[in-house]
Amino acid sequence: MTKIIGISDVAVIVRAVGVTGLLDELIDRLRSSLASFDAELLETHDRTGFHYDKPGLGLVEWMPAMDVGRRVSVKTVGYHPANPAQRNSPSVLATTSLYDTTDGRLLLVCEATVLTALRTGAASAIATDVLAAPEASVLGVVGCGAQAVTQIHALSRVRPIERVVAFDTSAAVAESLPSRLDRLELDPVDVQLVGPDDLGRLMSEADVLCTATTVDPGAGPVVPESEHRPWLHINAVGADFPGKREIPLTYLDDALVCPDVPAQCLVEGEAQQLRAEDLGPDLAVLVRNEGEYRRYRELLTVFDSTGWALEDLVAAELLSDHADRLGVGTEVDLQPTTDDPYDPYRALDGVEVGPRKRDPR
Amino acid sequence: MTKIIGISDVAVIVRAVGVTGLLDELIDRLRSSLASFDAELLETHDRTGFHYDKPGLGLVEWMPAMDVGRRVSVKTVGYHPANPAQRNSPSVLATTSLYDTTDGRLLLVCEATVLTALRTGAASAIATDVLAAPEASVLGVVGCGAQAVTQIHALSRVRPIERVVAFDTSAAVAESLPSRLDRLELDPVDVQLVGPDDLGRLMSEADVLCTATTVDPGAGPVVPESEHRPWLHINAVGADFPGKREIPLTYLDDALVCPDVPAQCLVEGEAQQLRAEDLGPDLAVLVRNEGEYRRYRELLTVFDSTGWALEDLVAAELLSDHADRLGVGTEVDLQPTTDDPYDPYRALDGVEVGPRKRDPR
Repeated sequence: MTKIIGISDVAVIVRAVGVTGLLDELIDRLRSSLASFDAELLETHDRTGFHYDKPGLGLVEWMPAMDVGRRVSVKTVGYHPANPAQRNSPSVLATTSLYDTTDGRLLLVCEATVLTALRTGAASAIATDVLAAPEASVLGVVGCGAQAVTQIHALSRVRPIERVVAFDTSAAVAESLPSRLDRLELDPVDVQLVGPDDLGRLMSEADVLCTATTVDPGAGPVVPESEHRPWLHINAVGADFPGKREIPLTYLDDALVCPDVPAQCLVEGEAQQLRAEDLGPDLAVLVRNEGEYRRYRELLTVFDSTGWALEDLVAAELLSDHADRLGVGTEVDLQPTTDDPYDPYRALDGVEVGPRKRDPR
Repeated sequence: MTKIIGISDVAVIVRAVGVTGLLDELIDRLRSSLASFDAELLETHDRTGFHYDKPGLGLVEWMPAMDVGRRVSVKTVGYHPANPAQRNSPSVLATTSLYDTTDGRLLLVCEATVLTALRTGAASAIATDVLAAPEASVLGVVGCGAQAVTQIHALSRVRPIERVVAFDTSAAVAESLPSRLDRLELDPVDVQLVGPDDLGRLMSEADVLCTATTVDPGAGPVVPESEHRPWLHINAVGADFPGKREIPLTYLDDALVCPDVPAQCLVEGEAQQLRAEDLGPDLAVLVRNEGEYRRYRELLTVFDSTGWALEDLVAAELLSDHADRLGVGTEVDLQPTTDDPYDPYRALDGVEVGPRKRDPR
């Protein structure tokens, strides 16, 4: 049997655990997976897919990972930037499938849209926890869309965030941010919305910065070169496409830049602006050697987040464990069982197989 | 909503249409898709995936295709050769997912194990219909496993097959072939099982040959160099892995060799033994120029079948159309709908989101 975990099942799990509880667990599990990461034991394929402009601009991509000897996970993710405005639908829609490597059976298909937002937040929280100043309390946010919610949520779990200074090119999107955060009942967080003229102030006050914009390829960066705290830590979340960038090169030149997936970041992350030899440790190395890298808490650092199939595997397994524990999800007889594996039609037993005659030409 | 079409739904569809009816429709639709194939309108990615030897020998691969402006399909296929002997489970297990390229939504997840066998048979039938002698009545079969059933079934739809001469290295597998075919109530087909010493006779009598073995990489070929009908057409179905081959090079050198996917065949099909410039037309070119290639019906020809994502897209759409028509399948609310696409948690509305406190470090 294959288990289906749909959005309403995710809601039941979140009702039981709390969305903050789920996020905390995901941060813990992801941190643990990163600390023990071994490319021989956890293989991932590069993200690849179809990019198109018909019927509109969009893509469908897949992100495969294998926990060797146990599971394969494949997250399939669609990105259709017109969804929010034209269809009242998230721009990102994702599902993850888990396969048993013993026999290849499909074990699980789960909703992964919320999971994708959560795991992206969790990855930033982990990088921030290693690299940001311990007393960081001011969070700058550039780009106030869906990712901003989970970024602010996740960062507030690892640093005592008291104030969010936020900007979006869409005033409407910016203005709805406080109400979206209100639902999370975070510890007192004062949200200050600023206009484009105040981006310099945002930069100068932030202890931690998060960029998560939909800037067009070629149109970046989205933050100005300006004064900043010497200990500023940046989570650059938006750049995930060739030509797309959010952070000025001067910052990257001065910073320890930690990519999640170095090869991918060099193609579609902020690291496009750098050479491979300019990069700092990747996220797994950073976490495994946390003690060594904590000294960068006093210095400028950048986490270049493009998304990693490992994060999706960990998130899907967490959801699956809760579904099993709570008895949530729908079991379907998707794939055949058979008493004769040499007869592909045996699984259809009881079925009429009499031919509908057609004369061979 | 996402539709799930499981194996019991496939059985209902087959009960309504007949497995021969479904196969005939698939042959027709696939022939039509091949005739109109345009790489600008139907894009496919190379098959790729994880290959492993822990916990046992196996692989999980994905085969993506896009009907531009309309649909993306991703078939995920597992191959675990120990499944039949150790788990009474098919060695191949597959599912196909269809995505709407308008918004990226997952429209359908369907069982594709039976579909894979059917579409592989359909592809051979189409190549055979162009290239085999019109009166071909003797079918040689080397390898009597699951694929043999759908190959014999499909070839009998395009040629007046009267006699099958079959060999398998496993006598038990060979001996069960007649009963597996009996269920299909094909037009009179006499199945003659032969031993390894009679492979030369099998080769000399066959008008059409189908090889579908599990020979190990490096251990082939599986048929001897011997006398054969001048008009012999071979469907080489088994070779789908580097080093795996079933057909002697001398045959390939003498034949018009038609690959389904040239680049893939050069890596894992019979075409591994050839250079790109030795290959004949691919399957789509063959079908589009059927009139031109019919003259090869008098000569030695080989269809090198490794599997193409286009075939899986066509098969899944056919199944989906029948499911819609018959009201078969299960609708699940897998993915979020939302009245605020900028709030990833909004789809979980009504859910407790109160934080489980944890002190930031």
